[in-house]
Amino acid sequence: MDVHDLETPSVLIDLDRMEANIQRMQDYCNQYGLDFRPHIKTHKIPDIARMQIEAGAVGIACQKVSEAEVFAEAGIDNIQIPYNIMGKQKTARLTDLALYNRVVVSADSAYTISGLAEAAKAKEMALRVMVDLVTDLQRTGAEVEQVVKLAQQIDANENLHFAGLLVYPSFPTMRPAIQEALHQLDRAGIGVDSVSGGGVGATKHAHEIPELTEVRVGTYVFNDWGTVSHGWASLDDCAMTVLLTVVSRPAPERAILDGGSKTLSSDVLDDGYGRIVEYPDARIYRLNEEHAYVDVSNCDPAPQIGEQVHVVPVHTCVVTNLHNRLYGVRGEEVEVVWPVAARGLVW
Amino acid sequence: MDVHDLETPSVLIDLDRMEANIQRMQDYCNQYGLDFRPHIKTHKIPDIARMQIEAGAVGIACQKVSEAEVFAEAGIDNIQIPYNIMGKQKTARLTDLALYNRVVVSADSAYTISGLAEAAKAKEMALRVMVDLVTDLQRTGAEVEQVVKLAQQIDANENLHFAGLLVYPSFPTMRPAIQEALHQLDRAGIGVDSVSGGGVGATKHAHEIPELTEVRVGTYVFNDWGTVSHGWASLDDCAMTVLLTVVSRPAPERAILDGGSKTLSSDVLDDGYGRIVEYPDARIYRLNEEHAYVDVSNCDPAPQIGEQVHVVPVHTCVVTNLHNRLYGVRGEEVEVVWPVAARGLVW
Repeated sequence: MDVHDLETPSVLIDLDRMEANIQRMQDYCNQYGLDFRPHIKTHKIPDIARMQIEAGAVGIACQKVSEAEVFAEAGIDNIQIPYNIMGKQKTARLTDLALYNRVVVSADSAYTISGLAEAAKAKEMALRVMVDLVTDLQRTGAEVEQVVKLAQQIDANENLHFAGLLVYPSFPTMRPAIQEALHQLDRAGIGVDSVSGGGVGATKHAHEIPELTEVRVGTYVFNDWGTVSHGWASLDDCAMTVLLTVVSRPAPERAILDGGSKTLSSDVLDDGYGRIVEYPDARIYRLNEEHAYVDVSNCDPAPQIGEQVHVVPVHTCVVTNLHNRLYGVRGEEVEVVWPVAARGLVW
Repeated sequence: MDVHDLETPSVLIDLDRMEANIQRMQDYCNQYGLDFRPHIKTHKIPDIARMQIEAGAVGIACQKVSEAEVFAEAGIDNIQIPYNIMGKQKTARLTDLALYNRVVVSADSAYTISGLAEAAKAKEMALRVMVDLVTDLQRTGAEVEQVVKLAQQIDANENLHFAGLLVYPSFPTMRPAIQEALHQLDRAGIGVDSVSGGGVGATKHAHEIPELTEVRVGTYVFNDWGTVSHGWASLDDCAMTVLLTVVSRPAPERAILDGGSKTLSSDVLDDGYGRIVEYPDARIYRLNEEHAYVDVSNCDPAPQIGEQVHVVPVHTCVVTNLHNRLYGVRGEEVEVVWPVAARGLVW
């Protein structure tokens, strides 16, 4: 299919750029002897995970059990779920998965660990569990002093195996806490299989924390206005664009595109909902569900009605999750159409 | 299925509340002799559209051709698409649909009308086209002076039929412009089949614009924090809640829920990403893709780890669009599981 035959909205992936992004990150990890574990939240597509593994990744990370099931079904068997998995049905499905695949999860509380232990006991297995260390992000994660207690709880249970330390994001400021946690674990006589860091910005500095054994990153595969705005990528590294049409020019300063919050998501940055490649001086200042409002008063010439434009979204991961398929494009050719296999799997 | 057997995240629809919302809006329209045309963007589920039609609705509104196809396939044959449809494949599919269903679209430019005319000519049919009048929202829509010209363009084309005036949202402040447009159309000798208004807030005042013949509303069927915050509904009218679990309590003031921007969307209002029914004093202050950060410092008692909570989302329509199914609940019973048939149909 020719790219000019696509109607809008369509989500395009520039295959040359995506392949370069995959290789660049793998090269970095190889250079520093880091295991690389791409997070599939960004693409949710098994074919792309296979490309990442073929380039040298050790496995993948998923955020949810239902995502992991899709990727295991597709033949990927080294899966990390850096999440507190709880609930009887979910822990049962998690342990089902771990019977036949190399699976590791994380926990930041005794409550989570107890639930995992119960599910693992029912299957007479040993489930691999990492301990999540709190970071400056202040999301999940145990304080350093709690890490040893949780590791001991895991270690003491015959149906669990302590699989290491999990840190997100692993900016260099986290090194002292990581060192202290490792020191305390060492003093408690607990072996540490791995120290997993991650985050698209932090990974550029992963070599500044020699204690890290692996990193996990999602967004790098496509990049977006967020990574560009933070200086973690250039606009030329952005593999994902959303093809939209100018469907209305109701006023000289205003253009309306045929994609809104159901196409681009409501994520906003730098006072805009995405960047129009062809019109860098335009600003997407508001979204409704199926409309983007664009201020074109600084554009000369301004976009015309019926014209197609490419939008670099603010946050690629949430855009993937809105769409049923992504179009892999090389030059003028649509080389592949990928169903977004794990789309909407929030469970 | 018992509602307590559901794991999280799950999107619940309180069927009693939804049915009351459907009946209340229909009663209002019946009282004032207004045709009611529910917009299916909020639920994207044919079964719910059928309930709306059984209650007395004349048909439905869809925002995209691909949505209209799903609902036509399900047997609903009076469909309005209040959107500038352009692009050869889309206008071809639109006219295919209009051959066997009662379909009407809108336009705000000569460009849109020309494209529709070309597609209708290829099918040797007459396509029904309304003219979209600009409102205070400043989104799409022609100025009053342009309305007659566009109506004349439609009227003069043997493959198009002028089907009336479209206004969104139709707050009472729009009455003078509607009157002026109708006056000019009358002077030009152009008959007006219908004057369609809409918007969940504006519809409460639809009777203040006697010129309106119909209204279209989506959000009323479920309601959300947005409609409550604007005073258009009460919290007890909110039929949709998102069932989430407290998966981490890493600090006394912080709870983390297992749903983020891929579950609740990034739509934000009143400095929060949704309201927790059980903890009105809690505030969801940040979302990542699969995590909600909750400030529970004002809660006494505070939610505990492992506890399930119900979140009224900020914007119900974008939440529906993130999920593969909605659970229709009555009391403790999950009475129906609906696939979100038109989810992700942005085309």
